[in-house]
Amino acid sequence: MDDRTLATDAQPGESATIAGWLHETRDLGGIAFLILRDRSGKIQVKLEKDEMDDAMVETGLDAHRESVLQVSGAVEDEERAPTGVEVVPESIEVVAAADPELPLDPSGKVDAGLDTRLDNRTLDVRKPAVKAVFEIRSAALAGVRASFRDLDCTEITTPKIVATGTEGGTELFPVSYFAQEAYMNQSPQLFKQLMIGSGLERVFEIGPIFRAEEHNTPRHLNEATSIDFESAFADASDAMDACETIVRGAYEAVAETCEAELETLGLAEDFTVPEAGFPRITYEEALDRINATGAVDETLEWGDDLSTPAEEALGEDVGEHYFITDWPSEIKPFYIKDRDDDATVSTGFDMMHPRLELVSGGQREHRFDHLVEGFEQQGLDPEAFDYYTQMFRYGMPPHAGWGLGAERLVMTMLDLDNIREAVLFPRDRQRLSP
Amino acid sequence: MDDRTLATDAQPGESATIAGWLHETRDLGGIAFLILRDRSGKIQVKLEKDEMDDAMVETGLDAHRESVLQVSGAVEDEERAPTGVEVVPESIEVVAAADPELPLDPSGKVDAGLDTRLDNRTLDVRKPAVKAVFEIRSAALAGVRASFRDLDCTEITTPKIVATGTEGGTELFPVSYFAQEAYMNQSPQLFKQLMIGSGLERVFEIGPIFRAEEHNTPRHLNEATSIDFESAFADASDAMDACETIVRGAYEAVAETCEAELETLGLAEDFTVPEAGFPRITYEEALDRINATGAVDETLEWGDDLSTPAEEALGEDVGEHYFITDWPSEIKPFYIKDRDDDATVSTGFDMMHPRLELVSGGQREHRFDHLVEGFEQQGLDPEAFDYYTQMFRYGMPPHAGWGLGAERLVMTMLDLDNIREAVLFPRDRQRLSP
Repeated sequence: MDDRTLATDAQPGESATIAGWLHETRDLGGIAFLILRDRSGKIQVKLEKDEMDDAMVETGLDAHRESVLQVSGAVEDEERAPTGVEVVPESIEVVAAADPELPLDPSGKVDAGLDTRLDNRTLDVRKPAVKAVFEIRSAALAGVRASFRDLDCTEITTPKIVATGTEGGTELFPVSYFAQEAYMNQSPQLFKQLMIGSGLERVFEIGPIFRAEEHNTPRHLNEATSIDFESAFADASDAMDACETIVRGAYEAVAETCEAELETLGLAEDFTVPEAGFPRITYEEALDRINATGAVDETLEWGDDLSTPAEEALGEDVGEHYFITDWPSEIKPFYIKDRDDDATVSTGFDMMHPRLELVSGGQREHRFDHLVEGFEQQGLDPEAFDYYTQMFRYGMPPHAGWGLGAERLVMTMLDLDNIREAVLFPRDRQRLSP
Repeated sequence: MDDRTLATDAQPGESATIAGWLHETRDLGGIAFLILRDRSGKIQVKLEKDEMDDAMVETGLDAHRESVLQVSGAVEDEERAPTGVEVVPESIEVVAAADPELPLDPSGKVDAGLDTRLDNRTLDVRKPAVKAVFEIRSAALAGVRASFRDLDCTEITTPKIVATGTEGGTELFPVSYFAQEAYMNQSPQLFKQLMIGSGLERVFEIGPIFRAEEHNTPRHLNEATSIDFESAFADASDAMDACETIVRGAYEAVAETCEAELETLGLAEDFTVPEAGFPRITYEEALDRINATGAVDETLEWGDDLSTPAEEALGEDVGEHYFITDWPSEIKPFYIKDRDDDATVSTGFDMMHPRLELVSGGQREHRFDHLVEGFEQQGLDPEAFDYYTQMFRYGMPPHAGWGLGAERLVMTMLDLDNIREAVLFPRDRQRLSP
């Protein structure tokens, strides 16, 4: 598109026009170096003060750090340059000047807190290690989509402004929709199920979800990206197989296309694609293993939810991605089907990274009567969900699916401390801008 | 995943388990046929009343249309069957019974209005011609993403809940974000630009946009899917090149992977990928050509916007995808850069299908002072946009980009009458559910 040469493509013996940010100026007296940075990497520009055009040298030396410069000249071998080549300039132009004072140092030499970084995301994503996270996120999503297509899924788009939410009003953000009361959707759950009963049968969606949860933790966002899957004629075990395929697909795409980014993050040697056959542990076995670790104060009993310390103890014990299956029906949502042989046990499952939960899924309740009952038990008015339940009266096949948090996937893949590191412009209780 | 055989994969001489919807029952007396339909197509099941198990025959004949059945048996050649094969059943099971009365006939024999169809989208998307549209939409988006990756773009995700909108308050849906006033984002414009100044340089996003426009027309939605592109070191001409590549990429993917769907829609023979080199017509030339057609009552003059009839007259005259360039600055948004040689002329462009506008783009104003001035002239408080404008002080390169409406792309590609045909669950002034 643009006819400049990227920094890492510059070939000795050729002339090139490089454009990028002034990363650093090193003035050694008679000679000085400008280090330019573009999306490919860095390149050195040599300034010989006595031998080059004074005005050009001055332009280069006067430019403030992080200004955008365009430099044309000959590319030459130079052993002592960081990348083994340098540009001997014939012209230097300041394309966009930067202020002398920056709110954030993109070289990373001066530390900045997360809030400063998020307030100045443009500068923050100039840091190679931050840029690498978002290049990897992009590659992971490409891998996820390719894997969905291998599974013969159709990509769907479901609405984000909705009349009702599945989990009641407290976790919903209200929207004024012309004269009507509406909400931001907290999950595509109901809509993807509606498409299971259509001719599409097997669908995926990657899109935003919105949750008005008040907790502010390093693992929660109020606006997140959900990777959703749903398939007709599938049970929980089929859905777990698909889940494994998709997560492994994300890792494989990153392993194949992001070698340089993994190197930048210091992960090149440790990065491995999770092996197929994630262990499937029943909830009951999970309780036993957690209790055996002694990591939780009170002995966990059937019906207890797993606290964060409990999850972490189990994760450490298992040491790889794993599923927890056969949860008590009472602590799973009503739209998850109970087991046919024992209604107190649900077909719901979670898929866990050793650090935290990534996926929630299960076989769905596809029987009209049971579903309507479930809404009532949940304290929701079934009539408000007629647009959904009525479709279960016209031939809704058994089906199963799950939702995977994209930010959690990236966070655990790259061992990031805070989920806000995995999204460009996070939204939480305090942060609505940028 | 599931171990059933898809209808179109059933091979004569083999035994198969087919599961799908009961499309039709043909009872000829001693013999009867069930037509099952799944996502691949249809298959005939033969019932010989005197020779087969009575209970099984009864199960098949008693099933209501659109119930989900699972049929196991031998697949045999049968010339008179619609697909040349039929299943001779050994077992028939009703997996999910349908009510005898349906609100919509998925066979399409009984016409239904658009509202009835949208109220019952699950049944509507069982129609092969409706399903085909959404399979094609899915393939088109895959083609778009593949083309973006060929252009070395990074996929980004920008927030949908925002503190400010670029076009003032009237077209924004308000959201209660905890104690704060917020809005649904009407465009990722500002956020994608922020990433141009980061290390990513060239980005794309496919995601929802929200516009509280009051008009209810066959070409507007209040929630739509926007395909957004932005590149550093690019001008309007570069952005138009990229636009052409992406639109052609969508058509190519559909041509390559959706032969059957195009056939279903009766488009197989007429479907062509638009030729490269879309004509680029200046706004001034566009006025002349529109005036020459005599299609508009008053002669159009410099500064006039193009009405729908004007666009249609020009589209008919040009007869292919085309760009309109060099618009008057006064009728383009302030964040579009004016031409350096004439500030009354903008670098903004539209990309048009003969039927309607698909894309709006241009080179962006990247100079801090001009940008702040633009906010003021627009009647917006520049301070409310500090999170955006401040980043232009730290080295923001020249850049250009555009936004393409996914639904308009699909609508024009498949010659659909109404944009609501191109989205599963449309949102308009009247419709918030399903």
